[in-house]
Amino acid sequence: MTTTYNSIKSLREALKPLRANKTIALVPTMGNLHQGHISLVKLAKQHADIVVVSIFVNPTQFGAGEDLDSYPRTLEADTDKLKAAEADYIFAPTVDEMYPVMPPPTQVLAGNISKILCGKSRPTHFDGVGIVVTKLFNIIQPDVAVFGKKDYQQLAIIKQLVRDLSFDIQLVGGPIVRAEDGLALSSRNQYLTQQERAKAPELHKAVQDLALKLQDGKATCETDLKRLIEQSIAEINAKGFKVDYLEVKNQDLTPITEFAGKQSWLIAVAAWLGKARLLDNQEVDI
Amino acid sequence: MTTTYNSIKSLREALKPLRANKTIALVPTMGNLHQGHISLVKLAKQHADIVVVSIFVNPTQFGAGEDLDSYPRTLEADTDKLKAAEADYIFAPTVDEMYPVMPPPTQVLAGNISKILCGKSRPTHFDGVGIVVTKLFNIIQPDVAVFGKKDYQQLAIIKQLVRDLSFDIQLVGGPIVRAEDGLALSSRNQYLTQQERAKAPELHKAVQDLALKLQDGKATCETDLKRLIEQSIAEINAKGFKVDYLEVKNQDLTPITEFAGKQSWLIAVAAWLGKARLLDNQEVDI
Repeated sequence: MTTTYNSIKSLREALKPLRANKTIALVPTMGNLHQGHISLVKLAKQHADIVVVSIFVNPTQFGAGEDLDSYPRTLEADTDKLKAAEADYIFAPTVDEMYPVMPPPTQVLAGNISKILCGKSRPTHFDGVGIVVTKLFNIIQPDVAVFGKKDYQQLAIIKQLVRDLSFDIQLVGGPIVRAEDGLALSSRNQYLTQQERAKAPELHKAVQDLALKLQDGKATCETDLKRLIEQSIAEINAKGFKVDYLEVKNQDLTPITEFAGKQSWLIAVAAWLGKARLLDNQEVDI
Repeated sequence: MTTTYNSIKSLREALKPLRANKTIALVPTMGNLHQGHISLVKLAKQHADIVVVSIFVNPTQFGAGEDLDSYPRTLEADTDKLKAAEADYIFAPTVDEMYPVMPPPTQVLAGNISKILCGKSRPTHFDGVGIVVTKLFNIIQPDVAVFGKKDYQQLAIIKQLVRDLSFDIQLVGGPIVRAEDGLALSSRNQYLTQQERAKAPELHKAVQDLALKLQDGKATCETDLKRLIEQSIAEINAKGFKVDYLEVKNQDLTPITEFAGKQSWLIAVAAWLGKARLLDNQEVDI
């Protein structure tokens, strides 16, 4: 059975008696659920007895002029999907329930890691992620929390948050779920026109091409890597995208300084296609 | 019995089986315990079944040039006092245990309320308080947390933190404990020479004098209040203190804008006497 709670108090009361002998997993979402989210629910079920899915379009992680108002809200369809996936609890609070004072004076900031990649064009985005995730962790007090790797930087920031704020929570990163043609699933894909949607998988292909080159050892120094990245960006832009960034980092998002030996890199890209800002990434282990 | 833990993991393991049917109170301290702290432990025992006292001289709340190195560390004597007060657990971690990465990139900031009063001369102090209290809350997950009202601004910031970050914790403020001559107990009082110590109660007396004037309705407008505050500061300085600030605020630390009707005000003062920076405050309900 899947039960929905809108208030913090009622959810806490429901979870309290379970804590003694059950483990609890949290899957935080903004709703408008697709197979990517459902895969995280399934992953959560493998890691804990009880799965709580939060559905909250968090205003503090949207910047001025971003798509807060138009972000798709589909609670009824989401509920059906979560019933089918056998989630135990849905937490769907209002903005007032989550933020009695708005904006909240207290801030949870991630420092340098929030200022690179997506943080450059969305300078306050991860501040909003920091506070809402902290709140959800404190409301649900889960043993396990599951986040998708599509938002790789978000997951890296939350890993840091869990360490720095001493949360007793095991983090699990779920692999990117893709459409058959390779496009990473995202609620924002529905902003694409049919024509754009047909073109969209080219982003993933370009990332795959770059990954192959890196795996083939074609980046033996900073200059090589820079040239390969620039080629990639040019190819993606030539296909009608507008690349926001394409970068290669270590998987903890620190800059690459070592080229010899075993490496765990990440290709991360954000690109506009029409009205949609698409994210993708790929781990490259060399 | 009073048991001491130095590691987060071992404390968590000790507390886990208790949660099902006991309530837990936390009293965070920096050690060097005096009767003020012991009164908080007693208050905690009235509010919960189990009392955890943390002893941690938190480096992130000391600014450059402040007394981090000289701050008195007296764990053995503290342990004896806590045994006598029947605290259940002492949590005394090392700096490395609390901050595996130092400084921690994640920050918990309190906004405007941390920039007034003590925040003016100690601009990073409450940032350190924010992160360490968040960590202690997450490590101990108490039902109740007890803080002394001597650090009134700290308590106000933590009230805001609990609200904004959705901690499920009841906050209890313990009244200031004073020496017989009126001086508010503080670990920093031991920085006073004998001569300074004899003079120190004058700070409390000046605050009491101002409180009486406010209760007598002598501040009917902003100009009145300003004049009374200036008189008070001059009197304190004349006695050999160096006033850092003396301000009257609403008890939630917002500025006073209303003078008519029922008021809940706070007189807050910080003043240097020799090497000691002394704090005091008094609630004034009119």
